[in-house]
Amino acid sequence: MRDMLGREEVITVEHALELIFNNLSPKLPPEIDLKIYESYGRILSRDLFSPEDLPDFSRSTVDGFAVSAPDTFGATEGMPSYLNIRYEIAMGGEPDFELQKGEVAKIATGGMLPKGADAVVMFEHTQQVDAGMIEVMKPVAPGENVIQAGEDVKKGDCVLKKGHKMRPQDIGILSGLGMRDVWAYEQPKVSIISTGDEIVPPDEPVRPGQVRDINSYNLAGLTLDAGAIPLIKGIFSDDYNIIRDVVEKSVKDSAIVLISGGSSVGTKDVTAKVIDDLGKPGVLFHGVSLKPGKPTIGGIIDNVPVFGLPGHPAAVFVCFEIFIRPVVKTLSGISKERLDIGKRVIEARIARNISSSPGREEHIGVCLEEREGEIWAVPILGKSGLLSTLIKADGTAVIPLRKLGVEEGEIVKVRLF
Amino acid sequence: MRDMLGREEVITVEHALELIFNNLSPKLPPEIDLKIYESYGRILSRDLFSPEDLPDFSRSTVDGFAVSAPDTFGATEGMPSYLNIRYEIAMGGEPDFELQKGEVAKIATGGMLPKGADAVVMFEHTQQVDAGMIEVMKPVAPGENVIQAGEDVKKGDCVLKKGHKMRPQDIGILSGLGMRDVWAYEQPKVSIISTGDEIVPPDEPVRPGQVRDINSYNLAGLTLDAGAIPLIKGIFSDDYNIIRDVVEKSVKDSAIVLISGGSSVGTKDVTAKVIDDLGKPGVLFHGVSLKPGKPTIGGIIDNVPVFGLPGHPAAVFVCFEIFIRPVVKTLSGISKERLDIGKRVIEARIARNISSSPGREEHIGVCLEEREGEIWAVPILGKSGLLSTLIKADGTAVIPLRKLGVEEGEIVKVRLF
Repeated sequence: MRDMLGREEVITVEHALELIFNNLSPKLPPEIDLKIYESYGRILSRDLFSPEDLPDFSRSTVDGFAVSAPDTFGATEGMPSYLNIRYEIAMGGEPDFELQKGEVAKIATGGMLPKGADAVVMFEHTQQVDAGMIEVMKPVAPGENVIQAGEDVKKGDCVLKKGHKMRPQDIGILSGLGMRDVWAYEQPKVSIISTGDEIVPPDEPVRPGQVRDINSYNLAGLTLDAGAIPLIKGIFSDDYNIIRDVVEKSVKDSAIVLISGGSSVGTKDVTAKVIDDLGKPGVLFHGVSLKPGKPTIGGIIDNVPVFGLPGHPAAVFVCFEIFIRPVVKTLSGISKERLDIGKRVIEARIARNISSSPGREEHIGVCLEEREGEIWAVPILGKSGLLSTLIKADGTAVIPLRKLGVEEGEIVKVRLF
Repeated sequence: MRDMLGREEVITVEHALELIFNNLSPKLPPEIDLKIYESYGRILSRDLFSPEDLPDFSRSTVDGFAVSAPDTFGATEGMPSYLNIRYEIAMGGEPDFELQKGEVAKIATGGMLPKGADAVVMFEHTQQVDAGMIEVMKPVAPGENVIQAGEDVKKGDCVLKKGHKMRPQDIGILSGLGMRDVWAYEQPKVSIISTGDEIVPPDEPVRPGQVRDINSYNLAGLTLDAGAIPLIKGIFSDDYNIIRDVVEKSVKDSAIVLISGGSSVGTKDVTAKVIDDLGKPGVLFHGVSLKPGKPTIGGIIDNVPVFGLPGHPAAVFVCFEIFIRPVVKTLSGISKERLDIGKRVIEARIARNISSSPGREEHIGVCLEEREGEIWAVPILGKSGLLSTLIKADGTAVIPLRKLGVEEGEIVKVRLF
């Protein structure tokens, strides 16, 4: 898109994201049945309801003596309650007796409360008088040191919701409820296409003027990290028919298509034309007020998001984080209920003055350092196009659209790698 | 360990960690040879040196015209330099000509500079006069808009260090340098042993007094998340000989051994005795000023760390994060150079008053909420022993050892799940 003077028109990152999400009708992936131990990190496709109570009997949460709480009322160190040890409860067993007034049963953490008991006195609050008697020096309330049957999870409760991403403790609780399988979404597939007549595969020798393919592997790693499956399609010449052919096939076998290289406004730029020609609505934006990443193309072909990414790996990286990761998330079925904060964006003080052009969002590679308990972001100097910057950095500091730059000591947001 | 009054002696979390690390001589795992696309998330076992220059020729970083910089000196919009377009540089090709004074060659981003050129003028700073001539309206300095051969990575440079955890961009750069394999450490193996006569496998029916195994799956997920391989050993009775047998085998086939259940000071507590009997130095601590997680046992058997964890899943979770994750990290060969901040611990305002006993570090399940741009940690109420707390939480808020509690609005550290 060009304005009246023929200059390329760029839009803000925010506007570009809006255009994508407003034109996309997210289609959730098919479901699969997974064993719980295979489900780590996967997204649930159905609500899970508990088939039983957890625990399904009243359990002690401490080591001590099962008692009837009123037997301890008023007990103090000076005036303890004297109670008779009548039983010992075996772990994993069901007590076959009922406590009578003045009787206690020795119980370990996790043991089942016998009939007649409604609380547990901790060992620490008792003194053994002889083999058959204890002094209780502190009263317990009914229910104290006990988890009631069904108190943790009730039969029929919704334990985990559709769209939840499985964590270790979630697998644990399903195991505890005797649930061995879950329904989850298949991970979305992301096609990765490298273009450029100068690009050769990593295992081939390079001739002068050629470079090896970096972006296929960079994007495959980012795709895995975002919870999707990369399909590396290979390296293609900057030719309209060749690119059209591979993009046409890719929109059929994947949920998202990424094309790296070929998005610069140069003679060989065919990506935008291919996206426009293959389906509706086609190209949504071409050029974003973002550095690095200005020549990014975003479009949709028959409800499949297609991105034309700049050839430069540093720009590819920033574009993935800003545009592609949120799209992958949406298409993976993950729910938006849990606040996703802290893990990827932190605040830090910038360690030197950085100037920036207003009217573009700028991302600068930084290393993090701790200085007197505060986190500082130290910009990595050197030309912005250098790959090695990306290797040395812990993340990128973001200078917002409307700022002319930042001063040393100013708080900035850092997107962590 | 008990003090003179026979009470159990507990030590601080800090002291417990010191005891482990002071008694451990970390033995790094064996090396394996991995294809770069298999290396995502793995730890390098050797420094990687570049076999070549990157780029191995001088490349343009913009679309424009390759020039000899002096030909543009003094150019302005009012007094442009007039230069002749003599050539166009094909992508992936080596220019077979040399620019003469007053000549330029059309070049795209990534193109190879011809002899006689030392800079590139961006299209935006030129006007086409006719098919054979441009006006340059802004001077360029030598080297401007060019990445020199070897400027990004020089042949022989150390690209990535031993102990580095592979990220997407690292795989990308190795691909760019033509390196197809890396040497990495094998992931450490973690034996997971569940004990308790009341524990049954998740696929068996439970009788009254029995509960299903939660910790094996909880710990397996946490182990995977920490970058290690879980070996689920099964459920064992709280019998000295049985536990001794499985622990003895486990210290031979794994780097770390975890025993859940059986660490409460109860009649069936055999874990500490097994650890003491099987090798030196044996038990290092038994009891930590931590809630939940007080009865944790830490020990080392012949240089293999062995932990006795409380039976309760919430305590297991906290103990894993505090004691086991750092040990897994150390034994996986990861270097300590990169600051690991932000991803796991954030600051938030606590949403209600919480009281705590001084003299213990307390971890409370919280949900995170954003309120007017600030992050708030909302404590999840209910008995601390409930599993469902762990499911509802986004992380745990930490109340430090020496505090009596926190007040609503106070900043706390939150360890994210």
